[in-house]
Amino acid sequence: MTQHLHGKQSKVYSMASADELKARIAELEHELAQVKGKVGARGKIQQMSSEVVDSNPYSRLMALKRMGIVDNYERIREFTVAVVGIGGVGSVTAEMLTRCGIGKLLLFDYDKVELANMNRLFFQPHQAGMSKVEAAEKTLRDINPDVEFETYNYNITTVENFQHFMDRVKYGGLKDQMPVDLVLSCVDNFEARMTINTACNELGQHWFESGVSENAVSGHIQFIQPGATACFACAPPLIVATNQDEKTLKREGVCAASLPTTMGIVAGFLVQNTLKYLLGFGNVTHYLGYNALQDFFPSMSMMPNPNCDDNHCRKQQVEYQKREAAKPKPEVKEQEEEKIVHQENDWGIELVSETTEEELNAAEGEKPSLVSGVTVAYTKPVKETKDDSASVETSEQSLEDLMAQMKSL
Amino acid sequence: MTQHLHGKQSKVYSMASADELKARIAELEHELAQVKGKVGARGKIQQMSSEVVDSNPYSRLMALKRMGIVDNYERIREFTVAVVGIGGVGSVTAEMLTRCGIGKLLLFDYDKVELANMNRLFFQPHQAGMSKVEAAEKTLRDINPDVEFETYNYNITTVENFQHFMDRVKYGGLKDQMPVDLVLSCVDNFEARMTINTACNELGQHWFESGVSENAVSGHIQFIQPGATACFACAPPLIVATNQDEKTLKREGVCAASLPTTMGIVAGFLVQNTLKYLLGFGNVTHYLGYNALQDFFPSMSMMPNPNCDDNHCRKQQVEYQKREAAKPKPEVKEQEEEKIVHQENDWGIELVSETTEEELNAAEGEKPSLVSGVTVAYTKPVKETKDDSASVETSEQSLEDLMAQMKSL
Repeated sequence: MTQHLHGKQSKVYSMASADELKARIAELEHELAQVKGKVGARGKIQQMSSEVVDSNPYSRLMALKRMGIVDNYERIREFTVAVVGIGGVGSVTAEMLTRCGIGKLLLFDYDKVELANMNRLFFQPHQAGMSKVEAAEKTLRDINPDVEFETYNYNITTVENFQHFMDRVKYGGLKDQMPVDLVLSCVDNFEARMTINTACNELGQHWFESGVSENAVSGHIQFIQPGATACFACAPPLIVATNQDEKTLKREGVCAASLPTTMGIVAGFLVQNTLKYLLGFGNVTHYLGYNALQDFFPSMSMMPNPNCDDNHCRKQQVEYQKREAAKPKPEVKEQEEEKIVHQENDWGIELVSETTEEELNAAEGEKPSLVSGVTVAYTKPVKETKDDSASVETSEQSLEDLMAQMKSL
Repeated sequence: MTQHLHGKQSKVYSMASADELKARIAELEHELAQVKGKVGARGKIQQMSSEVVDSNPYSRLMALKRMGIVDNYERIREFTVAVVGIGGVGSVTAEMLTRCGIGKLLLFDYDKVELANMNRLFFQPHQAGMSKVEAAEKTLRDINPDVEFETYNYNITTVENFQHFMDRVKYGGLKDQMPVDLVLSCVDNFEARMTINTACNELGQHWFESGVSENAVSGHIQFIQPGATACFACAPPLIVATNQDEKTLKREGVCAASLPTTMGIVAGFLVQNTLKYLLGFGNVTHYLGYNALQDFFPSMSMMPNPNCDDNHCRKQQVEYQKREAAKPKPEVKEQEEEKIVHQENDWGIELVSETTEEELNAAEGEKPSLVSGVTVAYTKPVKETKDDSASVETSEQSLEDLMAQMKSL
């Protein structure tokens, strides 16, 4: 009687003795316990330990202290991060933070898991049909029962949900009525990015933007501190400039390409910089791009646009400048002078780029064939790069090259 | 009667009626079917389809063709990749390849899953105690039943296993008696790396080396084509130069730090370059480093060492040079001249680096405190960088800088 009988098939037991029925129950209960064994495979841990034993899930993280990288790794448990969009980037982001032992995660998404998502990490075929936040929470709780979760299966861009989303960012922190420590945008469309931007500008909330191109071979992360750096509205991506409804991107029969590699790398950059920001080690990168075809990694900083369309961004800029002015002069002065490199930009956006427009274009590869007027939005977040920011390739550098550059100066 | 009763607790049924018992059986069978539903959640797929429907697990990969990135994505099913070491990097590497629909994977590891591995992606707490290859194969088959697997739960460095390992690299391809297409080294120690190097030099097998530093904040990948590029023995890592037994690194109470971010990023770089190599798009990077503290990505190419200790490497070099000489001159000539930049190096190793020693050091951050004579092995694979390979930072570039460089030329 080892075959599996479902529903009405159980009627075959009508002639069985009570003992046979009880034996079958015992057998099923045992099997179910075994299969379910995965749930709660470890209990909660009250305090992170540095002890080096195979059974300690935090030993390799606490070793970051002994290695001199992080002063106080345990602080990770005090932080709350909101992840918006639990797709190819967001799900891996949430898993990395969960495995790092983050205090609390807020997960937002309104999509369902589909088999078409299986070319990216995290979700499994048996979860097809479940809501992404529900499936993610279940998997993540199994991985680390020490993490607290809040999940919201809704679209943040509707008026009603937007208010609730703002509320959870403002009051969803681990400590009662405190804001979350960081918002990570892992959404796949412009409208949702602008919604997060609007909320974070109003709240003065630090956040990271992230994105992967439709041709799957480039991506980026961008750290946004309202008032101090360019916000998402300060430097509109190309998709706005073309004035095309982005919904045309999701026409029937048209789908963007994606790869588990690119999305995993972008999630890795996002969480690595989140850890650096929260735990105070290394340097948090303001903009980091990834071009897979050439293994090219542009980085830059962007100052806010004084004429930004978002009035909360402009307010935050004024407040940021007041705070900066109130600081002792000598240290601040030097930093500011370093930042303002290009003052002749009409937009009021200063770029500190390590790469030229030509390099960017050369590294960018083929553009996807999209509907007219729409182009890849997130590989080139700023429209213009200064002509004088010429780059010199070390390995190919010659006297002739240097002479040519001197002339241009 | 919805609580779960295991083992001897079934005795509470002694007073129950046959109908109650049958109801309990039906309930248990239903629950078990649900829990088990995950296994084989989709059947095998005979041919990759580009159809854009939610139920197609390959739609987003096949879209790479429409986007102009890959000419013939379906070819992925013809390739076999061997992954050696199924730890923090190797497991994610295997998962990415599985989700990409690779034809066949050979997995090698002799370790068991431990709770101490839970700070990296892939393995789950309920798998603690299972062999890594067994746990990985089970998870990966669930994710994509189209992939073929061979798993070996042994240490490749013993004499007996080494012969078997060589044999599987040589004959383990999808087509009968053909070699695998690529070997990916994801091991965590020098001995295993040298073993893979020895095997690949003898077989002329292309492979990628990968590694993550003990302080968890840097890593690298390196593409090795025996005879054409430096092999792992051509440029010994620092750990050899110090003549210290690396086993001291694994003393009781001492453990390396690790992060899911760094390991996920290195796995991403490894699989992305594997895809570029197998499917023929973009440029395969020979050496790509990652420094998490500064988001710094050194890259370079290394020519083989004519005095390499490995005689198979020296033989492959002779054969490679013969093959190159037999090619039509004009195209080859130009490439070779470009490669040989520094001829005064005693080691016979030519570096084509985009970064200076100073930049490398500046970006390297704190060294872990290890036993004396041992240092981080894999962030600086070559001992000396030429003095004349000065680098120019675009954003800070001034007339003075250029003048100084001209003098040095």
